[in-house]
Amino acid sequence: MATTTAIHNIGSLVTNDPALGDGGPLGLIADAAVVLERDRVAWVGPTDKAPDADTTYDADGRAVIPGFVDSHSHLVFAGDRTQEFNARMSGRGYSAGGIRTTVAATRAATDAELDANVARYLREALRQGTTTFETKSGYGLTTHDEARALRIAAQHTDEVTYLGAHIVSPDYADDPAGYVELVTGEMLDACAPYARWVDVFCEKGAFDGDQARAILTAGKAKGLTPRVHANQLSYGPGVQLAVELDAASADHCTHLTQQDVDALAQGNTVATLLPGAEFSTRAAWPDARRLLDAGATVALSTDCNPGSSFTSSMGFCIALAVRDMGMTPDEALWSATAGGAAALRREDVGRLTPGARADLALLDAPSHVHLAYRPGVPLVSRVWRDGEIVG
Amino acid sequence: MATTTAIHNIGSLVTNDPALGDGGPLGLIADAAVVLERDRVAWVGPTDKAPDADTTYDADGRAVIPGFVDSHSHLVFAGDRTQEFNARMSGRGYSAGGIRTTVAATRAATDAELDANVARYLREALRQGTTTFETKSGYGLTTHDEARALRIAAQHTDEVTYLGAHIVSPDYADDPAGYVELVTGEMLDACAPYARWVDVFCEKGAFDGDQARAILTAGKAKGLTPRVHANQLSYGPGVQLAVELDAASADHCTHLTQQDVDALAQGNTVATLLPGAEFSTRAAWPDARRLLDAGATVALSTDCNPGSSFTSSMGFCIALAVRDMGMTPDEALWSATAGGAAALRREDVGRLTPGARADLALLDAPSHVHLAYRPGVPLVSRVWRDGEIVG
Repeated sequence: MATTTAIHNIGSLVTNDPALGDGGPLGLIADAAVVLERDRVAWVGPTDKAPDADTTYDADGRAVIPGFVDSHSHLVFAGDRTQEFNARMSGRGYSAGGIRTTVAATRAATDAELDANVARYLREALRQGTTTFETKSGYGLTTHDEARALRIAAQHTDEVTYLGAHIVSPDYADDPAGYVELVTGEMLDACAPYARWVDVFCEKGAFDGDQARAILTAGKAKGLTPRVHANQLSYGPGVQLAVELDAASADHCTHLTQQDVDALAQGNTVATLLPGAEFSTRAAWPDARRLLDAGATVALSTDCNPGSSFTSSMGFCIALAVRDMGMTPDEALWSATAGGAAALRREDVGRLTPGARADLALLDAPSHVHLAYRPGVPLVSRVWRDGEIVG
Repeated sequence: MATTTAIHNIGSLVTNDPALGDGGPLGLIADAAVVLERDRVAWVGPTDKAPDADTTYDADGRAVIPGFVDSHSHLVFAGDRTQEFNARMSGRGYSAGGIRTTVAATRAATDAELDANVARYLREALRQGTTTFETKSGYGLTTHDEARALRIAAQHTDEVTYLGAHIVSPDYADDPAGYVELVTGEMLDACAPYARWVDVFCEKGAFDGDQARAILTAGKAKGLTPRVHANQLSYGPGVQLAVELDAASADHCTHLTQQDVDALAQGNTVATLLPGAEFSTRAAWPDARRLLDAGATVALSTDCNPGSSFTSSMGFCIALAVRDMGMTPDEALWSATAGGAAALRREDVGRLTPGARADLALLDAPSHVHLAYRPGVPLVSRVWRDGEIVG
C-alpha cells in the first residue's frame, strides 16, 4: 500500500476551514488537490502546487467533501415495521406497537443477527459517504439487552450512546420510577464500559425533566457525556436541560421557545436537526434558519431507525434542510460534516485540513451544491476512510 | 449468452397484473420467480413452480419491480445552472436567465457534448432502475437546434418528444405569432421524423390555449401524438385541451379545477405528476389523492431538467408522492411503472407478465414499500433491461 495518495483536479474542495480558499465557512478551494498520508490528510491546496505522492487519483473536475458525520442513529435493532409504515402512509388503521415492536424483536434476536444488521446499515451509510457514525442502544430496555446492544455497536464505531432511557420499558409500565432506578443503577453500570455518551428521550410519555436530569447526571458520574432527545414532539424542558448539563447535543429541536433558541445560541450544546423524522412522520419541520440566525451551532443527522426515519442518506437530509428548513446549500453541507463533528465533540473529522482524518467523499458532480440541487440522486461516487477507498 | 434466465427467491414481486398473486392492483406474488427469455418475460409465479432455465439468479428474499418508466424528462441540454439554484435556495438575488440560460448553452454545444450529456443522465437513471425514458427537445428553439436535439435523443430512446414550444424563442420575443408559425411549419417538418410525440408548455408567459391547440393539431397532422405541459404554475386551459385532443398525458397538473379533474377522470389522458419540480421550486404539491379518487390514471415522473427539477430518481419521486401528495406506497409504485407506461401508451413495459419486456429492478429491500419507507437510500441493487444486466 502506498504511503501517500494525491487526489488531483478537484473542481471544488470543501475543507470547512475558513482560513483556506475562498475564506467562507466552507473554505472552498477551486482546482484543488488533497494529499493523504496513511490515515490523515497531509496537505490541501491548488492542484498546481500539490506535492508529489506515491499514487495519484484524478477527480476530473468533480467535488470532494469531508465524509459525512452522522451523529444520531439507532442501528442496533431487529424486526420489520414495513407494514406499520405502509398502513400509516396509506391512511389505514394498524395496531402498531411502535418502539415496542422493535424492542420485542431485538430482544429475541441473536447477537449475530444484531451484529449483521448494524454492519449492513453502516456499510450502506459508508457507500453514501458517511465516514463517522454514532449509534445507540434503546431497543433492549433490560440490563442484559442494553449492554449487549452497546457491546455490538462498539465493535463498529467509537461513537456509542447508552439510551436505556428510550422509553419506559414495558416491563415497568406501572413503575416508571423503578425503571429510572434501573437505568441509573445496575443497567448503567453494565453499559458504561461500552459507551461514550448517555442519552434520554425527554418527552411527554417518555421521561420528564426531573427523570431526564437524574439519568443524565448518573451517566455523567460514570464518565459518559450527555446528549438529549429534546423537544421533538412538543415543547418541553429537554433543550434547557441539555444546555444546563453541557450536553454535546440537543437532538430534534422541532418545538423551540425563544428561551430554548437563546440557550442553544449561548451554550456549548449543538442543535442537531433530523429532517428524516419529520419527513417520514409528516411532522412540521424544525426551523434551522431561526437557530442559525440566533448563532446556534446546527448539525444535520439521519436519525436512522426502523420506526420514524429509516433513511441512511445524509444527502437526502441536506436536500430536505435546504428545501424545508431554511438552510442554504452551504450551511447544510457544513452541518452534515463539521456540524456533526461538533455534535460529537470531534476535531479530527468533518474537515479536510492537515492532520484531520483522511475521511472524504468524491461526488459525481462539480459542486457540493448538487447534493441539494439533485435530490435523491446517489451522487457519492467514491469514499475514502482512514485514507483507504471503502466505497 | 444464456437463452433463459430465472430469478428465484424473490420475496415480493410486483407484476402490475391484478389477475396474478394477491389480486390487488400490483399483482403481488410472494416467494416468486421470474423467467426471462431473451428480451422478454417468459414466466412469473411461485419459485417452487418455476420452470428450468439456463442460468439462475438468487434474489435472496428481496423485492423485484418492473423497471421504472420515466415518461417526462428534458435531457438534451448543456450548461450549468448550479449558481442559479444556489442563489434561489439561499435567498439571494441572481439575474437568472432561467430556460434562456440553458438555451444559449445548448445552442453553443457540439453534437458530441449534447450526446455525452444525454448518455450520462440516462446511464444515471438506468442505474437507479429506470429502464424506459422519454426525453424532449426544447432548449434549441431554432429549426436546426430542435431537430439536432431530437436526432441525438432518438439515438438513446424511442420515446422522443418535439417541444419546440417550450417557451417563445428569445429571437421572436416581439413576434410570438411568428414563432408559433415556425413551430407548426418549418421546424415541425424538420423535427417530426425524429419524434413520436408533440408537446407544448401551455402556461401564462409561454403559450396560451389557442397557440397550444394550433401547435398540437399541427403535430397530430404530421403523425405525432400530443402530450401537454398543463396547469403547472396556474389554472389554465392545458388539461382540458389535452383531453379534448386525446393527448397521451397532461403533465404537472398542479392547479386543477373540478372540471379539469373530471375531464381527466373521464378521458383517455393520463395525469402525470412531477413532484421533483415542486420539491426544487418550493411550490405547492399536486393533489394525487383527488385525481385517484376521481378515477383518473396517474403517472409519476422526474421532469429531470437543469432548471426546476434536476433529479433522475424515480424512487425519490415515489417518496415525495407518498409523503406529500396523498398516494399510498402501492399507488406510487404503480404510477412510476404502469402509470408511466400508460402515459407513453406502451403495453410492453411497466409490468412483469409473460410477453412484457424483460425490464426489471431488484431492490436491496424485501418490499417495494421501502422506496417510500427508506427515502433517499439508493435501494436499486441490480437492473435488467431487455433481459440483460445493465446496472
